[in-house]
Amino acid sequence: MTARGRLIAFEGIDGSGKSTQVRRVAADRGALCTFEPGDTELGAALRAVALHGTATMTPLAELLVMAADRAQHVAQVIEPALADGRDVVCDRFDGSTLAYQGYGRGLDLDEIRAVLSVATGGMSPDATVLLDCPVADALRRVAGDDGTPDRFEGDERFLGRVRDGFLALADLGSWIVVDATLPVDEVARLVDERLAASVR
Amino acid sequence: MTARGRLIAFEGIDGSGKSTQVRRVAADRGALCTFEPGDTELGAALRAVALHGTATMTPLAELLVMAADRAQHVAQVIEPALADGRDVVCDRFDGSTLAYQGYGRGLDLDEIRAVLSVATGGMSPDATVLLDCPVADALRRVAGDDGTPDRFEGDERFLGRVRDGFLALADLGSWIVVDATLPVDEVARLVDERLAASVR
Repeated sequence: MTARGRLIAFEGIDGSGKSTQVRRVAADRGALCTFEPGDTELGAALRAVALHGTATMTPLAELLVMAADRAQHVAQVIEPALADGRDVVCDRFDGSTLAYQGYGRGLDLDEIRAVLSVATGGMSPDATVLLDCPVADALRRVAGDDGTPDRFEGDERFLGRVRDGFLALADLGSWIVVDATLPVDEVARLVDERLAASVR
Repeated sequence: MTARGRLIAFEGIDGSGKSTQVRRVAADRGALCTFEPGDTELGAALRAVALHGTATMTPLAELLVMAADRAQHVAQVIEPALADGRDVVCDRFDGSTLAYQGYGRGLDLDEIRAVLSVATGGMSPDATVLLDCPVADALRRVAGDDGTPDRFEGDERFLGRVRDGFLALADLGSWIVVDATLPVDEVARLVDERLAASVR
Protein backbone atom coordinates (compact mmCIF):
# COMPACT_ATOMS: atom_id res chain seq x y z
CA MET A 1 0.00 0.00 0.00
CA THR A 2 1.30 3.44 -0.98
CA ALA A 3 1.90 5.89 1.85
CA ARG A 4 -0.40 8.88 1.60
CA GLY A 5 1.12 12.05 0.11
CA ARG A 6 1.59 15.24 2.11
CA LEU A 7 -0.13 18.56 1.50
CA ILE A 8 2.07 21.66 1.76
CA ALA A 9 0.33 25.03 1.51
CA PHE A 10 1.98 28.38 0.82
CA GLU A 11 0.27 31.52 2.05
CA GLY A 12 0.92 35.24 1.79
CA ILE A 13 -0.32 38.35 0.03
CA ASP A 14 0.23 38.78 -3.72
CA GLY A 15 3.76 40.00 -4.36
CA SER A 16 5.27 37.93 -1.54
CA GLY A 17 6.97 35.61 -4.03
CA LYS A 18 4.73 32.62 -3.37
CA SER A 19 4.44 31.26 -6.90
CA THR A 20 8.24 31.13 -7.35
CA GLN A 21 8.68 29.10 -4.16
CA VAL A 22 5.62 26.91 -4.83
CA ARG A 23 6.92 25.93 -8.26
CA ARG A 24 10.45 25.34 -7.00
CA VAL A 25 9.44 23.23 -3.99
CA ALA A 26 6.98 21.17 -6.06
CA ALA A 27 9.65 20.48 -8.70
CA ASP A 28 12.25 19.53 -6.07
CA ARG A 29 9.85 17.06 -4.43
CA GLY A 30 8.25 15.71 -7.60
CA ALA A 31 5.01 17.00 -6.08
CA LEU A 32 1.84 18.14 -7.81
CA CYS A 33 1.90 21.93 -8.12
CA THR A 34 -1.50 23.58 -7.89
CA PHE A 35 -3.22 26.78 -6.78
CA GLU A 36 -6.44 28.35 -5.52
CA PRO A 37 -8.75 29.76 -6.55
CA GLY A 38 -9.22 28.41 -10.03
CA ASP A 39 -7.28 25.21 -10.73
CA THR A 40 -10.28 23.17 -11.95
CA GLU A 41 -12.70 23.93 -14.80
CA LEU A 42 -15.35 24.91 -12.24
CA GLY A 43 -12.76 26.87 -10.28
CA ALA A 44 -11.71 28.85 -13.35
CA ALA A 45 -15.34 29.85 -13.93
CA LEU A 46 -15.77 30.82 -10.25
CA ARG A 47 -12.42 32.66 -10.20
CA ALA A 48 -13.57 34.72 -13.18
CA VAL A 49 -16.76 35.63 -11.31
CA ALA A 50 -15.07 36.29 -7.96
CA LEU A 51 -11.89 38.10 -8.97
CA HIS A 52 -12.73 39.79 -12.24
CA GLY A 53 -16.55 39.92 -12.39
CA THR A 54 -18.42 43.21 -12.16
CA ALA A 55 -21.27 41.88 -9.99
CA THR A 56 -21.76 43.27 -6.48
CA MET A 57 -20.67 40.59 -4.02
CA THR A 58 -21.04 40.58 -0.24
CA PRO A 59 -18.17 39.18 1.85
CA LEU A 60 -20.35 36.16 2.69
CA ALA A 61 -21.06 35.41 -0.96
CA GLU A 62 -17.34 35.80 -1.67
CA LEU A 63 -16.54 33.31 1.12
CA LEU A 64 -19.00 30.78 -0.28
CA VAL A 65 -17.70 31.11 -3.85
CA MET A 66 -14.14 30.54 -2.57
CA ALA A 67 -15.38 27.56 -0.54
CA ALA A 68 -17.06 26.09 -3.63
CA ASP A 69 -13.79 26.41 -5.53
CA ARG A 70 -11.94 24.68 -2.68
CA ALA A 71 -14.48 21.83 -2.40
CA GLN A 72 -14.07 21.05 -6.10
CA HIS A 73 -10.28 21.44 -5.95
CA VAL A 74 -9.94 19.08 -2.98
CA ALA A 75 -12.22 16.42 -4.48
CA GLN A 76 -10.95 16.57 -8.05
CA VAL A 77 -7.25 17.42 -7.69
CA ILE A 78 -5.76 17.34 -4.18
CA GLU A 79 -7.35 14.26 -2.59
CA PRO A 80 -6.76 11.92 -5.57
CA ALA A 81 -3.06 12.92 -5.67
CA LEU A 82 -2.60 12.47 -1.90
CA ALA A 83 -4.42 9.12 -1.98
CA ASP A 84 -2.09 8.08 -4.80
CA GLY A 85 0.92 8.79 -2.57
CA ARG A 86 1.93 12.01 -4.30
CA ASP A 87 2.82 15.16 -2.39
CA VAL A 88 0.87 18.30 -3.28
CA VAL A 89 2.17 21.86 -3.04
CA CYS A 90 -0.69 24.34 -3.14
CA ASP A 91 -0.52 28.10 -3.67
CA ARG A 92 -3.15 29.23 -1.10
CA PHE A 93 -5.51 27.07 0.97
CA ASP A 94 -7.79 27.63 4.01
CA GLY A 95 -5.37 30.18 5.47
CA SER A 96 -6.09 32.58 2.61
CA THR A 97 -9.84 32.34 3.21
CA LEU A 98 -9.38 33.12 6.91
CA ALA A 99 -6.96 35.97 6.15
CA TYR A 100 -8.83 37.64 3.26
CA GLN A 101 -12.49 37.00 4.12
CA GLY A 102 -11.95 36.91 7.89
CA TYR A 103 -9.26 39.43 8.90
CA GLY A 104 -9.60 41.38 5.62
CA ARG A 105 -13.38 41.54 5.12
CA GLY A 106 -14.35 41.14 8.76
CA LEU A 107 -16.33 37.88 8.62
CA ASP A 108 -16.50 35.80 11.80
CA LEU A 109 -13.59 33.32 11.90
CA ASP A 110 -15.69 30.52 13.44
CA GLU A 111 -18.32 30.88 10.71
CA ILE A 112 -15.58 30.67 8.08
CA ARG A 113 -14.12 27.59 9.76
CA ALA A 114 -17.56 25.93 9.83
CA VAL A 115 -17.98 26.48 6.09
CA LEU A 116 -14.43 25.35 5.24
CA SER A 117 -14.77 22.23 7.33
CA VAL A 118 -17.77 21.23 5.19
CA ALA A 119 -15.98 22.25 1.98
CA THR A 120 -12.81 20.22 2.59
CA GLY A 121 -14.19 17.44 4.78
CA GLY A 122 -11.78 18.70 7.43
CA MET A 123 -8.61 18.35 5.33
CA SER A 124 -5.71 20.43 6.65
CA PRO A 125 -2.17 20.88 5.30
CA ASP A 126 0.69 18.86 6.77
CA ALA A 127 2.70 22.08 6.67
CA THR A 128 1.90 25.69 5.86
CA VAL A 129 4.57 28.20 4.84
CA LEU A 130 3.82 31.92 5.19
CA LEU A 131 5.95 34.19 3.03
CA ASP A 132 5.61 37.37 5.04
CA CYS A 133 6.34 40.79 3.65
CA PRO A 134 5.20 44.36 4.31
CA VAL A 135 2.32 45.51 2.12
CA ALA A 136 4.37 48.32 0.56
CA ASP A 137 7.03 45.87 -0.67
CA ALA A 138 4.38 43.50 -2.04
CA LEU A 139 2.60 46.30 -3.87
CA ARG A 140 5.89 47.43 -5.44
CA ARG A 141 6.50 43.90 -6.76
CA VAL A 142 2.92 43.48 -8.00
CA ALA A 143 3.11 46.85 -9.78
CA GLY A 144 5.53 45.21 -12.22
CA ASP A 145 2.88 42.64 -13.24
CA ASP A 146 0.74 43.02 -16.32
CA GLY A 147 -3.00 43.54 -16.11
CA THR A 148 -5.40 45.45 -13.94
CA PRO A 149 -5.68 44.77 -10.20
CA ASP A 150 -8.29 42.15 -9.22
CA ARG A 151 -10.84 42.51 -6.41
CA PHE A 152 -8.22 41.77 -3.73
CA GLU A 153 -5.35 43.94 -4.92
CA GLY A 154 -4.60 47.58 -4.56
CA ASP A 155 -6.25 48.50 -1.24
CA GLU A 156 -3.34 49.02 1.12
CA ARG A 157 -5.38 49.09 4.36
CA PHE A 158 -7.27 45.94 3.41
CA LEU A 159 -4.00 44.17 2.58
CA GLY A 160 -2.54 45.37 5.88
CA ARG A 161 -5.34 43.57 7.74
CA VAL A 162 -4.77 40.48 5.60
CA ARG A 163 -1.04 40.47 6.36
CA ASP A 164 -1.67 40.86 10.09
CA GLY A 165 -4.24 38.08 9.83
CA PHE A 166 -1.72 35.75 8.19
CA LEU A 167 0.74 36.45 11.02
CA ALA A 168 -1.93 35.74 13.66
CA LEU A 169 -2.93 32.50 11.90
CA ALA A 170 0.72 31.47 11.62
CA ASP A 171 1.06 31.93 15.35
CA LEU A 172 -2.08 29.92 16.13
CA GLY A 173 -1.31 27.15 13.65
CA SER A 174 2.46 26.78 14.10
CA TRP A 175 3.09 27.67 10.47
CA ILE A 176 6.57 28.16 9.04
CA VAL A 177 7.13 31.91 8.63
CA VAL A 178 9.82 33.16 6.26
CA ASP A 179 10.79 36.79 5.71
CA ALA A 180 9.97 37.33 2.04
CA THR A 181 12.00 40.54 1.81
CA LEU A 182 15.24 38.51 1.94
CA PRO A 183 17.06 37.73 -1.34
CA VAL A 184 15.20 34.97 -3.22
CA ASP A 185 18.02 32.41 -2.75
CA GLU A 186 17.97 33.01 0.99
CA VAL A 187 14.16 32.65 1.06
CA ALA A 188 14.54 29.34 -0.81
CA ARG A 189 17.20 28.11 1.62
CA LEU A 190 15.07 28.98 4.66
CA VAL A 191 11.92 27.42 3.15
CA ASP A 192 13.78 24.16 2.41
CA GLU A 193 15.45 24.02 5.77
CA ARG A 194 12.22 24.60 7.69
CA LEU A 195 10.18 22.24 5.49
CA ALA A 196 12.78 19.49 5.80
CA ALA A 197 12.44 19.67 9.56
CA SER A 198 8.66 19.62 9.33
CA VAL A 199 7.64 17.12 6.61
CA ARG A 200 11.02 15.49 5.77
CA MET B 1 -41.61 52.51 12.40
CA THR B 2 -42.68 50.20 9.58
CA ALA B 3 -43.57 46.63 10.52
CA ARG B 4 -41.14 44.17 9.00
CA GLY B 5 -42.32 42.38 5.84
CA ARG B 6 -42.93 38.65 5.72
CA LEU B 7 -41.02 36.10 3.64
CA ILE B 8 -43.11 33.47 1.88
CA ALA B 9 -41.23 30.70 0.09
CA PHE B 10 -42.62 28.32 -2.53
CA GLU B 11 -40.96 24.95 -2.96
CA GLY B 12 -41.43 21.99 -5.28
CA ILE B 13 -39.85 20.27 -8.27
CA ASP B 14 -39.88 21.96 -11.68
CA GLY B 15 -43.22 21.43 -13.35
CA SER B 16 -45.19 21.70 -10.10
CA GLY B 17 -46.62 25.06 -11.17
CA LYS B 18 -44.60 27.14 -8.69
CA SER B 19 -43.89 30.16 -10.85
CA THR B 20 -47.58 30.69 -11.67
CA GLN B 21 -48.55 30.68 -7.97
CA VAL B 22 -45.51 32.76 -6.93
CA ARG B 23 -46.36 35.52 -9.42
CA ARG B 24 -50.05 35.46 -8.53
CA VAL B 25 -49.55 35.55 -4.75
CA ALA B 26 -46.92 38.30 -5.02
CA ALA B 27 -49.22 40.43 -7.21
CA ASP B 28 -52.20 39.92 -4.86
CA ARG B 29 -50.15 41.00 -1.84
CA GLY B 30 -48.16 43.77 -3.52
CA ALA B 31 -45.12 41.74 -2.52
CA LEU B 32 -41.72 41.58 -4.14
CA CYS B 33 -41.57 38.57 -6.45
CA THR B 34 -38.18 36.92 -6.68
CA PHE B 35 -36.50 33.56 -7.27
CA GLU B 36 -33.44 31.41 -6.63
CA PRO B 37 -30.97 30.67 -7.93
CA GLY B 38 -30.05 33.69 -10.03
CA ASP B 39 -32.00 36.83 -9.15
CA THR B 40 -28.95 39.09 -8.65
CA GLU B 41 -26.14 39.87 -11.10
CA LEU B 42 -23.82 37.57 -9.14
CA GLY B 43 -26.59 34.97 -8.92
CA ALA B 44 -27.12 35.00 -12.67
CA ALA B 45 -23.41 34.32 -13.21
CA LEU B 46 -23.45 31.52 -10.61
CA ARG B 47 -26.68 30.07 -12.02
CA ALA B 48 -25.07 29.90 -15.45
CA VAL B 49 -22.13 27.99 -13.95
CA ALA B 50 -24.23 25.69 -11.75
CA LEU B 51 -27.17 24.86 -14.00
CA HIS B 52 -25.83 25.17 -17.52
CA GLY B 53 -22.03 24.98 -17.20
CA THR B 54 -20.07 22.00 -18.52
CA ALA B 55 -17.58 21.84 -15.63
CA THR B 56 -17.53 18.77 -13.40
CA MET B 57 -19.03 19.74 -10.04
CA THR B 58 -19.19 17.69 -6.85
CA PRO B 59 -22.39 17.84 -4.76
CA LEU B 60 -20.46 19.85 -2.13
CA ALA B 61 -19.30 22.43 -4.67
CA GLU B 62 -22.87 22.63 -5.98
CA LEU B 63 -24.12 23.25 -2.43
CA LEU B 64 -21.60 26.05 -1.88
CA VAL B 65 -22.40 27.75 -5.19
CA MET B 66 -26.11 27.67 -4.31
CA ALA B 67 -25.30 29.03 -0.85
CA ALA B 68 -23.26 31.87 -2.39
CA ASP B 69 -26.23 32.76 -4.58
CA ARG B 70 -28.51 32.74 -1.52
CA ALA B 71 -26.16 34.88 0.59
CA GLN B 72 -26.07 37.55 -2.12
CA HIS B 73 -29.83 37.32 -2.73
CA VAL B 74 -30.67 37.69 0.96
CA ALA B 75 -28.32 40.65 1.47
CA GLN B 76 -29.07 42.51 -1.75
CA VAL B 77 -32.76 41.76 -2.40
CA ILE B 78 -34.71 39.98 0.35
CA GLU B 79 -33.47 41.64 3.56
CA PRO B 80 -33.75 45.25 2.27
CA ALA B 81 -37.36 44.60 1.15
CA LEU B 82 -38.34 42.97 4.45
CA ALA B 83 -36.66 45.74 6.44
CA ASP B 84 -38.62 48.24 4.35
CA GLY B 85 -41.88 46.57 5.41
CA ARG B 86 -42.50 44.83 2.11
CA ASP B 87 -43.55 41.18 1.85
CA VAL B 88 -41.36 38.96 -0.33
CA VAL B 89 -42.53 35.90 -2.23
CA CYS B 90 -39.60 33.74 -3.27
CA ASP B 91 -39.55 30.88 -5.76
CA ARG B 92 -37.24 28.43 -3.86
CA PHE B 93 -35.28 29.04 -0.67
CA ASP B 94 -33.42 26.82 1.86
CA GLY B 95 -35.93 24.00 1.36
CA SER B 96 -34.71 23.50 -2.20
CA THR B 97 -31.10 23.20 -1.07
CA LEU B 98 -32.02 20.58 1.53
CA ALA B 99 -34.21 18.69 -0.96
CA TYR B 100 -31.89 18.78 -4.01
CA GLN B 101 -28.42 18.69 -2.47
CA GLY B 102 -29.47 16.74 0.64
CA TYR B 103 -32.17 14.21 -0.26
CA GLY B 104 -31.32 14.31 -3.98
CA ARG B 105 -27.50 14.29 -3.97
CA GLY B 106 -27.04 12.63 -0.60
CA LEU B 107 -25.19 15.36 1.32
CA ASP B 108 -25.54 15.39 5.11
CA LEU B 109 -28.52 17.54 6.13
CA ASP B 110 -26.78 18.97 9.20
CA GLU B 111 -23.79 20.05 7.10
CA ILE B 112 -26.14 21.75 4.66
CA ARG B 113 -27.95 23.49 7.52
CA ALA B 114 -24.61 24.70 8.94
CA VAL B 115 -23.67 26.26 5.59
CA LEU B 116 -27.11 27.80 5.02
CA SER B 117 -27.17 29.27 8.49
CA VAL B 118 -23.95 31.16 7.65
CA ALA B 119 -25.25 32.12 4.20
CA THR B 120 -28.54 33.62 5.38
CA GLY B 121 -27.59 34.71 8.89
CA GLY B 122 -30.30 32.30 10.07
CA MET B 123 -33.17 33.85 8.08
CA SER B 124 -36.12 31.53 7.67
CA PRO B 125 -39.42 32.04 5.81
CA ASP B 126 -42.55 33.06 7.73
CA ALA B 127 -44.39 30.49 5.65
CA THR B 128 -43.35 27.87 3.12
CA VAL B 129 -45.74 26.41 0.56
CA LEU B 130 -44.92 23.07 -1.06
CA LEU B 131 -46.63 22.41 -4.36
CA ASP B 132 -46.45 18.65 -4.39
CA CYS B 133 -46.83 16.55 -7.49
CA PRO B 134 -45.66 13.14 -8.71
CA VAL B 135 -42.47 13.25 -10.75
CA ALA B 136 -44.16 11.80 -13.86
CA ASP B 137 -46.73 14.63 -13.90
CA ALA B 138 -44.02 17.26 -13.39
CA LEU B 139 -41.89 15.83 -16.19
CA ARG B 140 -44.88 15.84 -18.55
CA ARG B 141 -45.44 19.54 -17.82
CA VAL B 142 -41.74 20.44 -18.13
CA ALA B 143 -41.53 18.55 -21.46
CA GLY B 144 -43.66 21.32 -22.94
CA ASP B 145 -41.00 23.92 -22.00
CA ASP B 146 -38.45 25.17 -24.46
CA GLY B 147 -34.76 24.48 -24.08
CA THR B 148 -32.61 21.58 -22.97
CA PRO B 149 -32.87 20.14 -19.46
CA ASP B 150 -30.54 21.71 -16.87
CA ARG B 151 -28.39 19.81 -14.40
CA PHE B 152 -31.38 19.08 -12.13
CA GLU B 153 -33.96 18.02 -14.68
CA GLY B 154 -34.60 14.79 -16.48
CA ASP B 155 -33.39 12.17 -13.99
CA GLU B 156 -36.58 10.58 -12.68
CA ARG B 157 -35.02 8.68 -9.76
CA PHE B 158 -33.13 11.78 -8.59
CA LEU B 159 -36.32 13.85 -8.78
CA GLY B 160 -38.19 11.12 -6.89
CA ARG B 161 -35.74 11.50 -3.99
CA VAL B 162 -36.12 15.30 -4.18
CA ARG B 163 -39.93 15.05 -4.06
CA ASP B 164 -39.79 12.66 -1.08
CA GLY B 165 -37.32 15.05 0.57
CA PHE B 166 -39.67 17.99 0.11
CA LEU B 167 -42.48 15.98 1.75
CA ALA B 168 -40.23 15.03 4.68
CA LEU B 169 -39.13 18.67 5.12
CA ALA B 170 -42.74 19.85 4.94
CA ASP B 171 -43.59 17.46 7.73
CA LEU B 172 -40.65 18.58 9.90
CA GLY B 173 -41.18 22.30 9.24
CA SER B 174 -45.00 22.52 9.31
CA TRP B 175 -45.08 23.74 5.71
CA ILE B 176 -48.29 24.26 3.79
CA VAL B 177 -48.65 21.35 1.34
CA VAL B 178 -50.96 21.69 -1.66
CA ASP B 179 -51.68 18.97 -4.23
CA ALA B 180 -50.35 20.48 -7.44
CA THR B 181 -52.19 17.98 -9.66
CA LEU B 182 -55.51 19.73 -8.90
CA PRO B 183 -56.87 22.23 -11.44
CA VAL B 184 -54.89 25.50 -11.26
CA ASP B 185 -57.85 27.51 -9.87
CA GLU B 186 -58.31 25.01 -7.08
CA VAL B 187 -54.54 25.11 -6.31
CA ALA B 188 -54.80 28.92 -6.13
CA ARG B 189 -57.82 28.74 -3.81
CA LEU B 190 -56.09 26.30 -1.45
CA VAL B 191 -52.84 28.28 -1.44
CA ASP B 192 -54.70 31.51 -0.56
CA GLU B 193 -56.83 29.86 2.12
CA ARG B 194 -53.86 28.21 3.82
CA LEU B 195 -51.63 31.29 3.54
CA ALA B 196 -54.38 33.55 4.94
CA ALA B 197 -54.53 31.33 8.02
CA SER B 198 -50.76 31.35 8.38
CA VAL B 199 -49.43 34.87 7.62
CA ARG B 200 -52.76 36.85 7.36
